[in-house]
Amino acid sequence: MSSKEPKSTPLFKPTLILHGGAGALKRSTLPPSLYTQYQTSLLTYLRATHHLLQTGTSALDAAVHAVTLLEDDPLFNCGRGSVFTSAGTIEMEASVMVTSIDARSEPIKRGAAVSGLRNVRHPILLAKECLLRPGAADDGSMHSQLAAPYVEEKARAWGLEFKPDEWFWTRRRWDEHLRRRVGSFSQGTVGCVCLDGCGNLAVATSTGGLTNKWPGRVGDTPSFGAGFWAEGWDEHEVFASGAGWGACLGWDLGSWSVRRGVRRLVAVSGTGDGDSFLRVAAARTACAMVRFGGARSLAGAVAAVAGPGGELQRSAGGRWGAGEGEGGIIGIEVLVEVDEEGLPVSGRLGRGTVVFDFNCGGMWRAWVEEDGDGKEIENVMVFRGPY
Amino acid sequence: MSSKEPKSTPLFKPTLILHGGAGALKRSTLPPSLYTQYQTSLLTYLRATHHLLQTGTSALDAAVHAVTLLEDDPLFNCGRGSVFTSAGTIEMEASVMVTSIDARSEPIKRGAAVSGLRNVRHPILLAKECLLRPGAADDGSMHSQLAAPYVEEKARAWGLEFKPDEWFWTRRRWDEHLRRRVGSFSQGTVGCVCLDGCGNLAVATSTGGLTNKWPGRVGDTPSFGAGFWAEGWDEHEVFASGAGWGACLGWDLGSWSVRRGVRRLVAVSGTGDGDSFLRVAAARTACAMVRFGGARSLAGAVAAVAGPGGELQRSAGGRWGAGEGEGGIIGIEVLVEVDEEGLPVSGRLGRGTVVFDFNCGGMWRAWVEEDGDGKEIENVMVFRGPY
Repeated sequence: MSSKEPKSTPLFKPTLILHGGAGALKRSTLPPSLYTQYQTSLLTYLRATHHLLQTGTSALDAAVHAVTLLEDDPLFNCGRGSVFTSAGTIEMEASVMVTSIDARSEPIKRGAAVSGLRNVRHPILLAKECLLRPGAADDGSMHSQLAAPYVEEKARAWGLEFKPDEWFWTRRRWDEHLRRRVGSFSQGTVGCVCLDGCGNLAVATSTGGLTNKWPGRVGDTPSFGAGFWAEGWDEHEVFASGAGWGACLGWDLGSWSVRRGVRRLVAVSGTGDGDSFLRVAAARTACAMVRFGGARSLAGAVAAVAGPGGELQRSAGGRWGAGEGEGGIIGIEVLVEVDEEGLPVSGRLGRGTVVFDFNCGGMWRAWVEEDGDGKEIENVMVFRGPY
Repeated sequence: MSSKEPKSTPLFKPTLILHGGAGALKRSTLPPSLYTQYQTSLLTYLRATHHLLQTGTSALDAAVHAVTLLEDDPLFNCGRGSVFTSAGTIEMEASVMVTSIDARSEPIKRGAAVSGLRNVRHPILLAKECLLRPGAADDGSMHSQLAAPYVEEKARAWGLEFKPDEWFWTRRRWDEHLRRRVGSFSQGTVGCVCLDGCGNLAVATSTGGLTNKWPGRVGDTPSFGAGFWAEGWDEHEVFASGAGWGACLGWDLGSWSVRRGVRRLVAVSGTGDGDSFLRVAAARTACAMVRFGGARSLAGAVAAVAGPGGELQRSAGGRWGAGEGEGGIIGIEVLVEVDEEGLPVSGRLGRGTVVFDFNCGGMWRAWVEEDGDGKEIENVMVFRGPY
């Protein structure tokens, strides 16, 4: 399983997770017909994206593809189903971030984000273009975050699709706008985290933002470390040192050591009250707990940030309960044993672990997981227990 | 020193640090006359801000005031001395973030940021207004990040000062613009971190961004966790437990414990290659190392991120040396011993520790520190050693 082998040899069993928004969802206000619509959409997009990963599509392309499907679906608050600002306009945001088991691959950028977009059919494709065009030779830049309108000119030059205002207008979002209430936390920001067969991990996130937000409000979706994050690092451990315990026992064993370690990859996407995500840097904080804080798993860290009583909830203090601090996070964690040169140690096909948690009524999510026999099961859920 | 005492009783000796930009500064390209200009400006603003803190001004007001002085000084890349975009326009960014030793004070917002500003004389004052107007009753919002132009309308309504394009035009920045090179890392983004007598810690940061950046490029200055961060938390430790070592010794001491701990506050401001700061969430990462990673001090964490060979430098990989990954961070750390109720334990006047590090040629910085006799010394430096 050395990375010197051709890329066509899969190192990992591909896996993925999607989210379609989190908030004050309740059984009493989610009729079966609406539940079925969400469930059908999420299952369809999960299946299509899983198929792409299984047939060799990269994590970045697969995650972005999943989000384009969600952006075209008016059920979700992104792309076509985006909420309106207080001025009755639509301003969309999106981001991508990537990491890889191959520590020697130095991607020119690890993430890119766009905000304030109007009429761009697929904001997530524009974020991806910004990531993949790192320099003047590609008509791009090294900029990580780009706000409209100039980046829309670039989008036209790069051949991205635009749609008129009417295409984005939906009765449901317009009614929410007319109610003149800021918020609507069950708004359906979307995200997807994918692990591909080569050990690349990617996260893609897209949103219309907050209902009746001020024009120009920037949320967590295009903000590094708030609504999204991806990171990889090595943890090396000297398992035994002759000089160390030889001296301790009074023996002279000479100096020797066995250096072994793991490479860890994490990627997460958040949804909920974006301002709280910003104020606690939710996505980066969860990953920092794993990298620096000795959190045994990403699952534990995600719970400590986005689970009940976690960092996001505590950030709202006495204002908890009216939407502030509410939200959820999805993610994938990968551990790979590496040798002294930092190359993956041979073994069975690697696995990624899908994780999620939320501190509010519900979070729309869909993922695949293996049962005891290694068979992959598709899941769609909104509450903690079954609908 | 209980926080039940009136606010007029100082708990801390006020302290502060300013930065005026970091980059490929060299003795050979920094003539004495220019050095003296920077040195004089920084010392003047340091002294004025220190005086404010000593006479009871809050950390937020003092840090913001320091930055307004730097914004009016064409030496620095912010406000009046801002660099130009590729379109020959000026687009400014600023942010503020606060924390406090009083864990029971739940500020409605902990930070606010603005970007893409034109003609606003003091972007930092607009960031502060956004922080201090948390709701509709104040003509504000709970939004954490606001991009122009709508927030400029608010700035007019709130009475902020605007200046025409000519006021912002400087020969030096225009010449840099005409050279058509993107970058200029010794650009002079500014920041200030202040600790006041009540134990409030505030950070204020302001910039014109990157020379010849694309219009709409968002840097690290208005991005939570990238170019700025402030945070406070409690670390409690059970110093002795009767049930624990009583059982160990075979004695029945009953169950008792002494709960003691510290409250820690950190605040940092960064300057340098903003895109690298974004890609490693530099400010939040440094503070996470202290909070979650057991870094003994903020100084160590700032070195691990912004010092030579640190996280920022490593993020540039093979592209290190042409500006990418270059920069520095300033900050203040505070530790307060607290009792079982979380209230500060009486004792001598508390101290904040000023910290900084950088991985490039130099970083303009000014700070106060106590000598052995408790006398406060003013410092201005640009290189590691004296000029």
